[in-house]
Amino acid sequence: MRLLVAYDGGAFSGFAKNLNIRSVAGVLEEGLERILRHPVVVTGAGRTDRGVHARGQVISFDTYLDRLDPVKLRRSLNGLCGPDVIVREVSAAPADFDARFSATSRTYRYEIDTAETAMPFTARYRWHFTAPLSVEDMNAAASVLVGLHDFTSFCRRPPTAVDAPAVSLRRTVHAAQWSVPGEDRLRFEITAGAFCHQMVRSIVGTLVDIGRAKRRVDEIASILEARDRAVAGDLAPPHGLFLWHVGY
Amino acid sequence: MRLLVAYDGGAFSGFAKNLNIRSVAGVLEEGLERILRHPVVVTGAGRTDRGVHARGQVISFDTYLDRLDPVKLRRSLNGLCGPDVIVREVSAAPADFDARFSATSRTYRYEIDTAETAMPFTARYRWHFTAPLSVEDMNAAASVLVGLHDFTSFCRRPPTAVDAPAVSLRRTVHAAQWSVPGEDRLRFEITAGAFCHQMVRSIVGTLVDIGRAKRRVDEIASILEARDRAVAGDLAPPHGLFLWHVGY
Repeated sequence: MRLLVAYDGGAFSGFAKNLNIRSVAGVLEEGLERILRHPVVVTGAGRTDRGVHARGQVISFDTYLDRLDPVKLRRSLNGLCGPDVIVREVSAAPADFDARFSATSRTYRYEIDTAETAMPFTARYRWHFTAPLSVEDMNAAASVLVGLHDFTSFCRRPPTAVDAPAVSLRRTVHAAQWSVPGEDRLRFEITAGAFCHQMVRSIVGTLVDIGRAKRRVDEIASILEARDRAVAGDLAPPHGLFLWHVGY
Repeated sequence: MRLLVAYDGGAFSGFAKNLNIRSVAGVLEEGLERILRHPVVVTGAGRTDRGVHARGQVISFDTYLDRLDPVKLRRSLNGLCGPDVIVREVSAAPADFDARFSATSRTYRYEIDTAETAMPFTARYRWHFTAPLSVEDMNAAASVLVGLHDFTSFCRRPPTAVDAPAVSLRRTVHAAQWSVPGEDRLRFEITAGAFCHQMVRSIVGTLVDIGRAKRRVDEIASILEARDRAVAGDLAPPHGLFLWHVGY
Protein backbone atom coordinates (compact mmCIF):
# COMPACT_ATOMS: atom_id res chain seq x y z
CA MET A 1 0.00 0.00 0.00
CA ARG A 2 1.02 3.57 -0.59
CA LEU A 3 0.22 6.62 1.55
CA LEU A 4 0.61 10.30 0.73
CA VAL A 5 1.28 11.99 4.05
CA ALA A 6 1.71 15.51 5.49
CA TYR A 7 3.03 16.34 8.93
CA ASP A 8 4.07 19.17 11.19
CA GLY A 9 7.68 18.34 11.99
CA GLY A 10 7.52 20.43 15.16
CA ALA A 11 5.32 17.77 16.73
CA PHE A 12 7.77 14.90 16.16
CA SER A 13 11.40 14.01 16.88
CA GLY A 14 11.90 13.13 13.23
CA PHE A 15 10.54 10.69 10.69
CA ALA A 16 12.54 7.60 11.64
CA LYS A 17 11.41 5.34 14.45
CA ASN A 18 13.62 5.20 17.47
CA LEU A 19 13.34 4.28 21.12
CA ASN A 20 11.51 6.69 23.42
CA ILE A 21 10.77 9.37 20.85
CA ARG A 22 7.59 10.37 19.04
CA SER A 23 8.41 9.74 15.38
CA VAL A 24 6.21 10.01 12.31
CA ALA A 25 6.96 6.40 11.36
CA GLY A 26 6.20 5.22 14.89
CA VAL A 27 2.84 7.03 15.06
CA LEU A 28 1.79 5.71 11.63
CA GLU A 29 2.90 2.14 12.39
CA GLU A 30 1.00 2.18 15.66
CA GLY A 31 -2.14 3.46 13.91
CA LEU A 32 -1.84 0.93 11.08
CA GLU A 33 -1.28 -1.94 13.50
CA ARG A 34 -4.39 -1.00 15.49
CA ILE A 35 -6.48 -0.96 12.31
CA LEU A 36 -4.95 -3.91 10.43
CA ARG A 37 -4.21 -6.06 13.50
CA HIS A 38 -0.87 -7.27 12.23
CA PRO A 39 2.70 -5.93 12.59
CA VAL A 40 3.52 -3.12 10.13
CA VAL A 41 6.82 -1.57 9.05
CA VAL A 42 6.57 1.67 7.07
CA THR A 43 9.16 3.01 4.61
CA GLY A 44 9.30 6.72 3.80
CA ALA A 45 10.63 8.32 0.63
CA GLY A 46 12.62 10.78 2.73
CA ARG A 47 13.84 10.34 6.30
CA THR A 48 13.20 13.91 7.41
CA ASP A 49 15.08 15.16 10.48
CA ARG A 50 13.65 16.38 13.75
CA GLY A 51 11.62 19.56 13.11
CA VAL A 52 11.42 19.17 9.31
CA HIS A 53 7.88 19.19 7.86
CA ALA A 54 6.38 17.22 5.00
CA ARG A 55 3.58 18.11 2.64
CA GLY A 56 4.11 15.26 0.17
CA GLN A 57 5.91 12.45 1.99
CA VAL A 58 5.22 9.05 0.41
CA ILE A 59 5.10 5.94 2.55
CA SER A 60 4.84 2.27 1.67
CA PHE A 61 4.00 -0.76 3.79
CA ASP A 62 3.07 -4.38 3.24
CA THR A 63 -0.13 -6.03 4.35
CA TYR A 64 -1.46 -9.50 3.64
CA LEU A 65 -5.02 -8.19 3.87
CA ASP A 66 -6.67 -7.58 0.55
CA ARG A 67 -9.68 -5.55 -0.35
CA LEU A 68 -8.72 -2.74 2.04
CA ASP A 69 -11.02 0.23 1.43
CA PRO A 70 -8.63 3.17 0.82
CA VAL A 71 -11.13 5.84 1.94
CA LYS A 72 -12.03 4.00 5.16
CA LEU A 73 -8.36 3.33 5.92
CA ARG A 74 -7.52 7.00 5.40
CA ARG A 75 -10.30 8.17 7.70
CA SER A 76 -9.47 5.65 10.42
CA LEU A 77 -5.77 6.55 10.28
CA ASN A 78 -6.52 10.28 10.45
CA GLY A 79 -8.80 9.69 13.41
CA LEU A 80 -6.02 7.81 15.22
CA CYS A 81 -2.93 9.75 14.10
CA GLY A 82 -4.11 13.31 13.28
CA PRO A 83 -3.94 16.25 13.31
CA ASP A 84 -0.11 16.59 13.49
CA VAL A 85 0.29 13.92 10.82
CA ILE A 86 -2.45 13.37 8.28
CA VAL A 87 -2.85 10.87 5.48
CA ARG A 88 -3.90 12.72 2.34
CA GLU A 89 -4.32 9.69 0.08
CA VAL A 90 -4.29 5.92 0.38
CA SER A 91 -3.82 3.77 -2.70
CA ALA A 92 -2.96 0.23 -3.64
CA ALA A 93 0.59 -0.20 -4.96
CA PRO A 94 2.35 -2.97 -6.90
CA ALA A 95 3.96 -5.58 -4.66
CA ASP A 96 7.44 -4.33 -5.56
CA PHE A 97 6.66 -0.69 -4.80
CA ASP A 98 9.03 0.77 -2.21
CA ALA A 99 8.47 4.42 -1.27
CA ARG A 100 12.22 4.94 -0.88
CA PHE A 101 13.85 2.88 -3.60
CA SER A 102 11.16 3.35 -6.26
CA ALA A 103 11.37 7.15 -5.95
CA THR A 104 13.11 8.91 -8.83
CA SER A 105 13.07 12.46 -7.48
CA ARG A 106 12.47 14.46 -4.32
CA THR A 107 11.57 18.14 -4.11
CA TYR A 108 12.18 20.15 -0.95
CA ARG A 109 11.05 23.69 -0.22
CA TYR A 110 12.60 26.06 2.26
CA GLU A 111 10.79 29.27 3.29
CA ILE A 112 12.27 32.40 4.85
CA ASP A 113 10.26 35.18 6.48
CA THR A 114 12.06 38.50 6.02
CA ALA A 115 9.48 40.71 7.78
CA GLU A 116 10.66 42.90 10.64
CA THR A 117 8.37 40.90 12.94
CA ALA A 118 7.26 37.33 12.21
CA MET A 119 3.57 36.46 12.51
CA PRO A 120 2.95 33.74 15.13
CA PHE A 121 0.80 31.78 12.65
CA THR A 122 3.69 31.11 10.27
CA ALA A 123 6.65 31.33 12.68
CA ARG A 124 6.76 27.54 13.00
CA TYR A 125 7.05 27.10 9.23
CA ARG A 126 9.48 29.80 8.11
CA TRP A 127 12.97 30.85 9.12
CA HIS A 128 12.74 34.40 10.41
CA PHE A 129 15.74 36.17 8.94
CA THR A 130 15.74 39.95 8.70
CA ALA A 131 19.21 40.81 7.33
CA PRO A 132 19.00 41.84 3.66
CA LEU A 133 19.50 38.96 1.20
CA SER A 134 20.37 39.21 -2.48
CA VAL A 135 18.09 36.79 -4.33
CA GLU A 136 20.17 37.38 -7.46
CA ASP A 137 23.40 36.26 -5.75
CA MET A 138 21.71 33.28 -4.10
CA ASN A 139 20.32 32.18 -7.47
CA ALA A 140 23.68 32.60 -9.18
CA ALA A 141 25.23 30.32 -6.55
CA ALA A 142 22.32 27.85 -6.59
CA SER A 143 22.70 27.35 -10.35
CA VAL A 144 26.25 26.07 -9.76
CA LEU A 145 24.81 23.19 -7.72
CA VAL A 146 22.61 21.93 -10.56
CA GLY A 147 23.93 18.74 -12.16
CA LEU A 148 25.85 15.70 -10.93
CA HIS A 149 28.26 16.60 -8.13
CA ASP A 150 29.91 15.14 -5.10
CA PHE A 151 28.01 16.84 -2.27
CA THR A 152 30.36 15.75 0.53
CA SER A 153 30.75 19.40 1.62
CA PHE A 154 27.00 19.64 2.19
CA CYS A 155 26.37 16.26 3.80
CA ARG A 156 26.57 14.84 7.23
CA ARG A 157 28.51 11.65 6.51
CA PRO A 158 26.55 8.59 7.59
CA PRO A 159 28.21 6.59 10.39
CA THR A 160 30.03 3.59 8.86
CA ALA A 161 32.22 0.85 10.21
CA VAL A 162 35.93 1.58 9.93
CA ASP A 163 36.50 -1.05 7.26
CA ALA A 164 33.25 -0.38 5.31
CA PRO A 165 33.54 0.94 1.75
CA ALA A 166 33.00 4.71 1.53
CA VAL A 167 29.41 5.71 0.81
CA SER A 168 29.04 7.80 -2.33
CA LEU A 169 27.70 11.30 -1.75
CA ARG A 170 27.38 11.99 -5.47
CA ARG A 171 23.92 13.30 -6.23
CA THR A 172 22.17 14.82 -9.25
CA VAL A 173 20.40 18.11 -8.59
CA HIS A 174 17.78 18.74 -11.29
CA ALA A 175 16.76 22.24 -10.24
CA ALA A 176 17.57 24.69 -7.46
CA GLN A 177 16.01 28.12 -7.40
CA TRP A 178 15.00 30.98 -5.12
CA SER A 179 11.76 32.86 -5.69
CA VAL A 180 9.70 35.55 -3.96
CA PRO A 181 6.21 34.04 -3.45
CA GLY A 182 4.86 37.05 -1.55
CA GLU A 183 5.73 40.12 0.47
CA ASP A 184 8.47 39.48 3.03
CA ARG A 185 8.93 35.89 1.86
CA LEU A 186 11.70 34.00 0.11
CA ARG A 187 11.37 30.43 -1.10
CA PHE A 188 14.06 27.98 -2.14
CA GLU A 189 12.97 24.93 -4.11
CA ILE A 190 15.38 22.14 -4.91
CA THR A 191 14.80 18.88 -6.77
CA ALA A 192 17.26 15.99 -6.93
CA GLY A 193 17.18 12.27 -7.56
CA ALA A 194 18.05 11.81 -3.92
CA PHE A 195 19.55 13.87 -1.11
CA CYS A 196 22.14 12.97 1.47
CA HIS A 197 21.69 13.74 5.15
CA GLN A 198 21.17 17.44 6.01
CA MET A 199 21.96 18.41 2.41
CA VAL A 200 19.13 20.94 1.90
CA ARG A 201 19.64 22.73 5.22
CA SER A 202 23.39 22.88 4.60
CA ILE A 203 22.85 24.29 1.09
CA VAL A 204 20.33 26.85 2.35
CA GLY A 205 22.68 27.95 5.14
CA THR A 206 25.51 28.38 2.65
CA LEU A 207 23.38 30.22 0.07
CA VAL A 208 22.09 32.57 2.78
CA ASP A 209 25.73 33.35 3.71
CA ILE A 210 26.20 34.32 0.06
CA GLY A 211 22.92 36.27 -0.03
CA ARG A 212 24.00 38.39 2.92
CA ALA A 213 27.47 38.90 1.38
CA LYS A 214 29.26 36.97 4.13
CA ARG A 215 30.67 34.83 1.30
CA ARG A 216 31.15 35.61 -2.39
CA VAL A 217 29.05 33.98 -5.12
CA ASP A 218 32.08 32.30 -6.68
CA GLU A 219 32.96 30.54 -3.40
CA ILE A 220 30.17 28.01 -4.01
CA ALA A 221 32.28 26.19 -6.62
CA SER A 222 35.29 25.89 -4.32
CA ILE A 223 33.09 24.72 -1.43
CA LEU A 224 31.70 22.00 -3.68
CA GLU A 225 35.19 21.01 -4.86
CA ALA A 226 36.62 20.92 -1.33
CA ARG A 227 34.55 17.83 -0.43
CA ASP A 228 34.86 18.90 3.17
CA ARG A 229 31.85 19.43 5.44
CA ALA A 230 33.77 22.06 7.42
CA VAL A 231 33.99 24.56 4.57
CA ALA A 232 30.23 24.93 3.93
CA GLY A 233 27.92 27.19 5.93
CA ASP A 234 25.94 26.34 9.05
CA LEU A 235 22.70 24.38 8.77
CA ALA A 236 19.59 26.49 8.26
CA PRO A 237 17.06 25.71 11.03
CA PRO A 238 14.79 22.71 10.37
CA HIS A 239 11.41 24.44 10.79
CA GLY A 240 11.63 26.28 7.43
CA LEU A 241 12.04 23.02 5.49
CA PHE A 242 9.32 20.93 3.81
CA LEU A 243 9.58 17.66 1.93
CA TRP A 244 7.29 18.94 -0.79
CA HIS A 245 6.94 16.27 -3.44
CA VAL A 246 8.26 12.84 -4.37
CA GLY A 247 8.37 11.72 -7.99
CA TYR A 248 8.13 8.10 -9.20
CA MET B 1 1.40 53.93 24.41
CA ARG B 2 -0.22 51.88 21.68
CA LEU B 3 0.76 48.38 20.54
CA LEU B 4 -0.34 46.50 17.43
CA VAL B 5 -0.26 42.84 18.41
CA ALA B 6 -0.72 39.39 16.82
CA TYR B 7 -1.09 36.14 18.70
CA ASP B 8 -1.81 32.46 18.30
CA GLY B 9 -4.91 31.95 20.44
CA GLY B 10 -4.12 28.26 20.80
CA ALA B 11 -1.23 29.14 23.09
CA PHE B 12 -3.35 31.14 25.55
CA SER B 13 -6.48 30.74 27.67
CA GLY B 14 -7.88 33.96 26.25
CA PHE B 15 -6.98 37.63 26.10
CA ALA B 16 -8.20 38.72 29.52
CA LYS B 17 -6.02 38.31 32.58
CA ASN B 18 -7.26 35.87 35.17
CA LEU B 19 -5.83 33.82 38.00
CA ASN B 20 -3.76 30.75 37.12
CA ILE B 21 -4.14 30.98 33.36
CA ARG B 22 -1.77 32.06 30.60
CA SER B 23 -3.50 35.06 29.06
CA VAL B 24 -2.33 37.42 26.33
CA ALA B 25 -2.84 40.42 28.63
CA GLY B 26 -0.95 38.70 31.43
CA VAL B 27 2.05 37.81 29.26
CA LEU B 28 2.25 41.35 27.83
CA GLU B 29 1.88 43.01 31.24
CA GLU B 30 4.61 40.82 32.67
CA GLY B 31 6.92 41.66 29.75
CA LEU B 32 6.17 45.39 29.97
CA GLU B 33 6.71 45.44 33.73
CA ARG B 34 10.10 43.76 33.38
CA ILE B 35 11.18 46.33 30.80
CA LEU B 36 9.58 49.48 32.24
CA ARG B 37 10.04 48.54 35.91
CA HIS B 38 6.67 49.86 37.00
CA PRO B 39 3.20 48.25 37.23
CA VAL B 40 1.35 48.09 33.90
CA VAL B 41 -2.29 47.45 33.05
CA VAL B 42 -3.04 46.78 29.37
CA THR B 43 -6.38 47.37 27.64
CA GLY B 44 -7.23 45.49 24.45
CA ALA B 45 -9.61 46.60 21.69
CA GLY B 46 -11.23 43.16 21.74
CA ARG B 47 -11.32 40.67 24.60
CA THR B 48 -10.87 37.56 22.47
CA ASP B 49 -11.95 34.24 23.98
CA ARG B 50 -9.82 31.20 24.67
CA GLY B 51 -8.50 29.82 21.36
CA VAL B 52 -9.33 32.90 19.25
CA HIS B 53 -6.39 34.41 17.33
CA ALA B 54 -5.52 38.01 16.59
CA ARG B 55 -3.66 39.53 13.69
CA GLY B 56 -4.47 43.17 14.44
CA GLN B 57 -5.30 43.46 18.14
CA VAL B 58 -4.64 46.97 19.48
CA ILE B 59 -3.50 47.46 23.05
CA SER B 60 -3.02 50.59 25.13
CA PHE B 61 -1.22 51.14 28.42
CA ASP B 62 -0.02 54.08 30.47
CA THR B 63 3.55 54.74 31.46
CA TYR B 64 5.09 57.73 33.19
CA LEU B 65 8.36 57.14 31.37
CA ASP B 66 8.90 59.41 28.40
CA ARG B 67 11.22 59.10 25.47
CA LEU B 68 10.64 55.36 25.17
CA ASP B 69 12.25 54.14 21.95
CA PRO B 70 9.42 52.32 20.09
CA VAL B 71 11.75 50.05 18.12
CA LYS B 72 13.77 49.04 21.18
CA LEU B 73 10.60 48.45 23.18
CA ARG B 74 9.14 46.29 20.41
CA ARG B 75 12.29 44.19 20.15
CA SER B 76 12.60 43.74 23.92
CA LEU B 77 8.94 42.76 24.22
CA ASN B 78 9.20 40.26 21.37
CA GLY B 79 12.30 38.78 22.97
CA LEU B 80 10.43 38.31 26.25
CA CYS B 81 6.91 37.46 25.02
CA GLY B 82 7.34 35.86 21.56
CA PRO B 83 6.77 33.87 19.46
CA ASP B 84 3.14 33.01 20.42
CA VAL B 85 2.35 36.69 20.86
CA ILE B 86 4.31 39.29 18.94
CA VAL B 87 4.22 43.06 18.93
CA ARG B 88 4.08 44.29 15.34
CA GLU B 89 4.23 48.01 16.07
CA VAL B 90 4.80 50.29 19.05
CA SER B 91 3.76 53.92 18.87
CA ALA B 92 3.15 56.86 21.16
CA ALA B 93 -0.54 57.65 21.68
CA PRO B 94 -2.38 60.70 23.02
CA ALA B 95 -2.95 60.57 26.79
CA ASP B 96 -6.67 59.98 26.29
CA PHE B 97 -6.20 57.07 23.85
CA ASP B 98 -7.88 53.90 25.06
CA ALA B 99 -7.57 50.85 22.80
CA ARG B 100 -11.08 49.74 23.72
CA PHE B 101 -13.13 52.93 24.02
CA SER B 102 -11.40 54.90 21.27
CA ALA B 103 -12.01 52.12 18.73
CA THR B 104 -14.71 52.88 16.15
CA SER B 105 -14.78 49.51 14.36
CA ARG B 106 -13.58 45.94 14.67
CA THR B 107 -13.14 43.47 11.82
CA TYR B 108 -13.08 39.72 12.46
CA ARG B 109 -12.28 36.97 9.98
CA TYR B 110 -13.37 33.36 10.19
CA GLU B 111 -11.78 30.72 7.95
CA ILE B 112 -13.14 27.30 7.03
CA ASP B 113 -11.14 24.50 5.41
CA THR B 114 -13.42 22.41 3.19
CA ALA B 115 -10.76 19.99 1.90
CA GLU B 116 -11.35 16.26 2.39
CA THR B 117 -8.25 16.18 4.61
CA ALA B 118 -6.94 19.24 6.46
CA MET B 119 -3.24 20.07 6.24
CA PRO B 120 -1.54 20.03 9.67
CA PHE B 121 0.05 23.45 8.97
CA THR B 122 -3.29 25.27 8.84
CA ALA B 123 -5.45 22.96 11.00
CA ARG B 124 -4.96 25.21 14.01
CA TYR B 125 -6.25 28.26 12.12
CA ARG B 126 -9.24 26.97 10.14
CA TRP B 127 -12.40 25.08 10.99
CA HIS B 128 -12.28 21.79 9.08
CA PHE B 129 -15.78 21.32 7.73
CA THR B 130 -16.35 18.99 4.81
CA ALA B 131 -20.14 18.98 4.32
CA PRO B 132 -21.11 21.04 1.25
CA LEU B 133 -21.91 24.69 2.01
CA SER B 134 -23.82 27.14 -0.18
CA VAL B 135 -21.87 30.40 -0.18
CA GLU B 136 -24.79 32.05 -1.93
CA ASP B 137 -27.23 31.12 0.85
CA MET B 138 -24.77 32.09 3.58
CA ASN B 139 -24.26 35.49 1.93
CA ALA B 140 -28.00 36.04 1.52
CA ALA B 141 -28.43 35.42 5.26
CA ALA B 142 -25.33 37.46 6.21
CA SER B 143 -26.70 40.50 4.40
CA VAL B 144 -29.73 40.49 6.70
CA LEU B 145 -27.41 41.08 9.67
CA VAL B 146 -25.96 44.30 8.24
CA GLY B 147 -27.27 47.42 9.96
CA LEU B 148 -28.32 48.30 13.50
CA HIS B 149 -29.94 45.33 15.24
CA ASP B 150 -30.44 43.85 18.66
CA PHE B 151 -28.07 40.87 18.60
CA THR B 152 -29.35 39.22 21.78
CA SER B 153 -29.91 35.95 19.88
CA PHE B 154 -26.20 35.84 18.98
CA CYS B 155 -24.69 36.98 22.28
CA ARG B 156 -23.72 35.38 25.51
CA ARG B 157 -25.34 37.77 27.94
CA PRO B 158 -22.77 39.28 30.30
CA PRO B 159 -23.25 38.33 33.94
CA THR B 160 -25.02 41.21 35.71
CA ALA B 161 -26.36 41.76 39.19
CA VAL B 162 -30.05 40.97 39.52
CA ASP B 163 -31.00 44.61 39.99
CA ALA B 164 -28.56 46.06 37.41
CA PRO B 165 -30.02 47.77 34.34
CA ALA B 166 -30.10 45.48 31.29
CA VAL B 167 -27.03 45.81 29.08
CA SER B 168 -27.85 46.78 25.52
CA LEU B 169 -26.90 44.21 22.91
CA ARG B 170 -27.73 46.52 20.02
CA ARG B 171 -24.83 46.67 17.60
CA THR B 172 -24.23 48.10 14.13
CA VAL B 173 -22.81 45.66 11.61
CA HIS B 174 -21.16 47.57 8.76
CA ALA B 175 -20.36 44.60 6.53
CA ALA B 176 -20.66 40.81 6.66
CA GLN B 177 -19.61 38.69 3.71
CA TRP B 178 -18.39 35.24 2.74
CA SER B 179 -15.72 34.83 0.07
CA VAL B 180 -13.63 32.04 -1.45
CA PRO B 181 -9.98 33.11 -1.03
CA GLY B 182 -8.57 29.88 -2.46
CA GLU B 183 -9.22 26.24 -3.22
CA ASP B 184 -10.99 24.43 -0.39
CA ARG B 185 -11.28 27.62 1.65
CA LEU B 186 -14.16 29.81 2.77
CA ARG B 187 -13.73 33.11 4.56
CA PHE B 188 -16.24 35.16 6.49
CA GLU B 189 -15.37 38.78 7.21
CA ILE B 190 -17.51 40.91 9.46
CA THR B 191 -17.06 44.52 10.56
CA ALA B 192 -19.06 46.23 13.29
CA GLY B 193 -18.67 49.18 15.60
CA ALA B 194 -18.41 46.68 18.43
CA PHE B 195 -19.31 43.06 19.07
CA CYS B 196 -20.90 41.42 22.06
CA HIS B 197 -19.54 38.25 23.64
CA GLN B 198 -19.29 35.22 21.28
CA MET B 199 -21.20 37.14 18.58
CA VAL B 200 -18.99 36.21 15.60
CA ARG B 201 -18.78 32.51 16.47
CA SER B 202 -22.53 32.38 17.05
CA ILE B 203 -23.20 34.10 13.71
CA VAL B 204 -20.78 31.79 11.87
CA GLY B 205 -22.35 28.70 13.46
CA THR B 206 -25.81 29.88 12.41
CA LEU B 207 -24.77 30.84 8.87
CA VAL B 208 -23.09 27.44 8.44
CA ASP B 209 -26.37 25.79 9.47
CA ILE B 210 -27.99 27.76 6.65
CA GLY B 211 -25.17 26.96 4.21
CA ARG B 212 -25.64 23.23 4.79
CA ALA B 213 -29.44 23.58 4.46
CA LYS B 214 -30.10 22.62 8.08
CA ARG B 215 -31.96 25.94 8.32
CA ARG B 216 -33.56 28.09 5.62
CA VAL B 217 -32.11 31.45 4.53
CA ASP B 218 -35.22 33.34 5.68
CA GLU B 219 -34.87 31.98 9.23
CA ILE B 220 -32.08 34.46 9.94
CA ALA B 221 -34.58 37.32 10.28
CA SER B 222 -36.76 35.45 12.78
CA ILE B 223 -33.68 34.36 14.77
CA LEU B 224 -32.63 38.02 15.00
CA GLU B 225 -36.16 39.09 16.00
CA ALA B 226 -36.51 36.36 18.64
CA ARG B 227 -33.86 38.01 20.87
CA ASP B 228 -33.28 34.61 22.39
CA ARG B 229 -29.86 32.96 22.54
CA ALA B 230 -31.47 29.51 22.36
CA VAL B 231 -32.83 29.93 18.84
CA ALA B 232 -29.50 30.66 17.11
CA GLY B 233 -27.02 27.97 16.01
CA ASP B 234 -24.14 26.49 17.98
CA LEU B 235 -20.89 28.39 18.32
CA ALA B 236 -18.36 27.78 15.57
CA PRO B 237 -15.06 26.55 17.10
CA PRO B 238 -12.70 29.33 18.26
CA HIS B 239 -9.61 28.31 16.28
CA GLY B 240 -11.01 29.54 12.93
CA LEU B 241 -11.51 33.08 14.26
CA PHE B 242 -9.12 36.05 13.99
CA LEU B 243 -9.48 39.58 15.32
CA TRP B 244 -8.25 41.01 12.04
CA HIS B 245 -8.31 44.81 12.29
CA VAL B 246 -9.39 47.58 14.62
CA GLY B 247 -10.35 51.00 13.27
CA TYR B 248 -9.99 54.32 15.14
